[in-house]
Amino acid sequence: MATSPTIGSYLIRRLQDYGVRHIFGIPGDYVLGFYDQLQNSPLKVIGTTKEDGAGFAADAYARINGMGAVCVTYCVGGLSVANAVAGAYAEKSPVVVISGSPGMRERIDDPLLHHKVRSFSTQKEIFEKITVASAVLDDPDTALARIDECLAACWQHKRPVYIELPRDLVDVRPRYPHRAVTRERQFDPRALKEAIGEAVARLNRAKRPVILADVEVHRFGLAEELRALTERSNIPVAVTILGKSVISELHPNYLGIYEGAMGRAEVRAAVEDADCLLMLGTVLSDVNLGIFTAELDHGRAIEATSELISISRHRYDRVDFAQFVHALTRAKLRRHRSRNLAPAPKPPVGEPRDCAITVTRLFDFIDERLSEDMAVVCDVGLCLFGAIDLVIHRKTEFIAPAYYTSMGFAVPASIGVALANPRLRPVVLVGDGAFQMTGMELSTVVAQGLDPIIIVLNNHGYTTERFIKDGPYNDILNWRFERIPEILGSGWGRAVRSEREFTEAWATACAYRGRFSLIAVELEPFDHCPALGRLGERMARNLSQSK
Amino acid sequence: MATSPTIGSYLIRRLQDYGVRHIFGIPGDYVLGFYDQLQNSPLKVIGTTKEDGAGFAADAYARINGMGAVCVTYCVGGLSVANAVAGAYAEKSPVVVISGSPGMRERIDDPLLHHKVRSFSTQKEIFEKITVASAVLDDPDTALARIDECLAACWQHKRPVYIELPRDLVDVRPRYPHRAVTRERQFDPRALKEAIGEAVARLNRAKRPVILADVEVHRFGLAEELRALTERSNIPVAVTILGKSVISELHPNYLGIYEGAMGRAEVRAAVEDADCLLMLGTVLSDVNLGIFTAELDHGRAIEATSELISISRHRYDRVDFAQFVHALTRAKLRRHRSRNLAPAPKPPVGEPRDCAITVTRLFDFIDERLSEDMAVVCDVGLCLFGAIDLVIHRKTEFIAPAYYTSMGFAVPASIGVALANPRLRPVVLVGDGAFQMTGMELSTVVAQGLDPIIIVLNNHGYTTERFIKDGPYNDILNWRFERIPEILGSGWGRAVRSEREFTEAWATACAYRGRFSLIAVELEPFDHCPALGRLGERMARNLSQSK
Repeated sequence: MATSPTIGSYLIRRLQDYGVRHIFGIPGDYVLGFYDQLQNSPLKVIGTTKEDGAGFAADAYARINGMGAVCVTYCVGGLSVANAVAGAYAEKSPVVVISGSPGMRERIDDPLLHHKVRSFSTQKEIFEKITVASAVLDDPDTALARIDECLAACWQHKRPVYIELPRDLVDVRPRYPHRAVTRERQFDPRALKEAIGEAVARLNRAKRPVILADVEVHRFGLAEELRALTERSNIPVAVTILGKSVISELHPNYLGIYEGAMGRAEVRAAVEDADCLLMLGTVLSDVNLGIFTAELDHGRAIEATSELISISRHRYDRVDFAQFVHALTRAKLRRHRSRNLAPAPKPPVGEPRDCAITVTRLFDFIDERLSEDMAVVCDVGLCLFGAIDLVIHRKTEFIAPAYYTSMGFAVPASIGVALANPRLRPVVLVGDGAFQMTGMELSTVVAQGLDPIIIVLNNHGYTTERFIKDGPYNDILNWRFERIPEILGSGWGRAVRSEREFTEAWATACAYRGRFSLIAVELEPFDHCPALGRLGERMARNLSQSK
Repeated sequence: MATSPTIGSYLIRRLQDYGVRHIFGIPGDYVLGFYDQLQNSPLKVIGTTKEDGAGFAADAYARINGMGAVCVTYCVGGLSVANAVAGAYAEKSPVVVISGSPGMRERIDDPLLHHKVRSFSTQKEIFEKITVASAVLDDPDTALARIDECLAACWQHKRPVYIELPRDLVDVRPRYPHRAVTRERQFDPRALKEAIGEAVARLNRAKRPVILADVEVHRFGLAEELRALTERSNIPVAVTILGKSVISELHPNYLGIYEGAMGRAEVRAAVEDADCLLMLGTVLSDVNLGIFTAELDHGRAIEATSELISISRHRYDRVDFAQFVHALTRAKLRRHRSRNLAPAPKPPVGEPRDCAITVTRLFDFIDERLSEDMAVVCDVGLCLFGAIDLVIHRKTEFIAPAYYTSMGFAVPASIGVALANPRLRPVVLVGDGAFQMTGMELSTVVAQGLDPIIIVLNNHGYTTERFIKDGPYNDILNWRFERIPEILGSGWGRAVRSEREFTEAWATACAYRGRFSLIAVELEPFDHCPALGRLGERMARNLSQSK
């Protein structure tokens, strides 16, 4: 009879099975035993300065790597990642949350152990609200099966799960040998066949079909299928802001970002006038739908996501999203003729001048300079709306919390991006307000020897909110961001005001490898990109109408 | 018929009734309407850089002011204060959490609005776990009564409450006039009389009685009663680490900090050998009980807290804690003779030398230099254990998260302390690890023109954990903390290594008013105070025994 592994070592092995190579977090006494196991395992422990930084890094890592993990101590650690994990839930990022906790033998008589809030189960009860599966590994004989279940749920739903490890069980072995059993959801091949038959008929009959691709195409690893699908059928592809970069934006069939009335008019016309709209992996959120200005006729739509497959106004249960996309790509699709919907190439941005740089010109300069080995990691607000029109090249990535929109995501996320794919150099776009929340996670960037390029759009406050309702509460203290390298003892920083200063700083940053670069771009408080103008106007209207 | 106030303005007025003058937070679009109301109210809005900073500041403010409040946006804001609010729950700090949320009319058909995690009630369900009352003000006709109930619960239990304000109801007035009704808990005066009678008889019969005072004495405003009680009866007073400073540590009846085997032997002997131990407002946590090395005989104890009154092994229900303390102070207590248990005065620390400063000497120097107008705000770890032996003077305050022990509390907390009582100058004791979590909240210190003295105990890692189990995960990047003023454009910083450098920097900091001072004290990674040595040893034993 084979010896069972310890609970801790089994968890580590199963994480590796799913491709996890790094784990983010901060130790604490309830999780120190497991940290010791991690330290002696092939997994690399990435200590951050703060737990939410670990959460955002693990989220970004999961988006690129297929699964990510965060490991923290009980309550003071766990509750500090709640917001980052909620964001991963909302945007379908498969993050495994591992928390140490008081040993089962310490819990007898319900003592007031440090870090405990109300009862020993308070933390689990909270995480049940923001995960798709959760388990306290309090019984050695079932612990391994619970690990299997949680990781399978994380993989299947592309959403966070919660695993709590009482510290006196980390090194315990179950009494009986364990055989991993994965209970997969049951699908009906006849339903799949019928759905594909109907979808193909509608697509082949259509004169102006369009594909609207969103984030699940990426999460379920279907980007190559999408490319094959559009190339075989010649159906053009628009994407949402949350789904940006699921297809190369240089692809001839690429239409642009669809965002209802918020986005570019040509893209809106093509999507909303489509006589068959194939929506793949879409999350119908307010931001994705241009604050509900989208006018999508479900009667002409085929919608396929991990949660449902529907055609017109009827739905197919028990059809798997990935299988549907695979089958569709291989089906007998007619080749549509080209309609020349691709966006006109932008005019060259021209030489940088000595005048003050504007948001629009800043994005133009960045756009022209993005290279294939760069991943754009975008925070919330002005930078997100400005980034809509950045052209993401083949094989690069665009990562942003475009639905949950939690400020402070980008700097820590860049750590996850760089570790998930060392060939990608992150370019972080972040506002001054968001940087003040989590930007000092650059400390971890230094500790890990990473070299993102950080562009701080410094407009001295919460500019998106200024467009909705302005008040002194939208102003924040000015930081000399460019001097942060002096605190951290590494990195290079520069504050810029003019176009020429920016392009020179960008060139220096690109050449400066092995350490981070930070360019703080001074902007006028109300300067903005066209997309933010449209969005702010709409949101202000919503706010006043909501009264 | 009087016109009803709007829901938002009623909430603001009721907060003022409870003495709230400042409200901490960060705006977001779901709460901008209420921010506008706040801005036009007598309440002062204190914008922080990050929501958890607002949570810690509100917690500290509540501890000194009697109630505190934090105001954030939906989910991305609310979930970011979950950990700070959990700490306030654990340590009984009356914090009102106000969160904006999507308007009720926006929720029809359950759309995917930005910031939403799973359902519209997810955030409330999470806060139900870490508050004593919660309400979504979704009905104008009941909203004002719900506000009354939540604030009364916060006041009564000295624990956080949660109030969610859908943004389309902020400016709405109820149809009917509202009369505030406070439903108070019903107590039984006969039970009180019986309990007092028994307590007095036991105290008067005792030969070696001792009072053990804890944090609830402070929270329920009973510090003056405690002083009167010990002065009338001449019974000596020990306090717990969480209750430190509920009585002046220069008071002749003051015994010292009781912490089981972790604390000083004389205090332990006096408390554990008492033939009648009057425990007032005690939280029987592991840290307070010296990691459960306390040996308290409940058969010889009178325990009074807001949750129960018990004498020996029987309990009195329906007796109010505050009424019990009031009545006891006024009862016919025999005057015990003095037993000379007060700690011997410390020998003078002597002249500072040019040698490297140690933790022990650092605390000795600080101790000698603390003045009456200073409040010690202490973070977790080495600084907390070192601070056990600091002598807090009359009228000063000691604030620390000594039970929940969430790192990163102190710097943001100092903002709450300074605003709650502008006559107190905070002295912040914080480790390098904790500072890296939240220390950049000094940005808010600058914005508000406050002048705390920040002492960073820089030992390059998580030293408390090094004593439990050491590994590379306990090492962190070194920051040049003293240069942070250059980032923020204000403040004064100095790194020190020797005793003389420290005392000179302290003198400069004391003289430098109106801006913060930061002294980064270089320490050896394993240098520590005696208390941490004892504690770390005990916790390491717990960790290995728990296997």
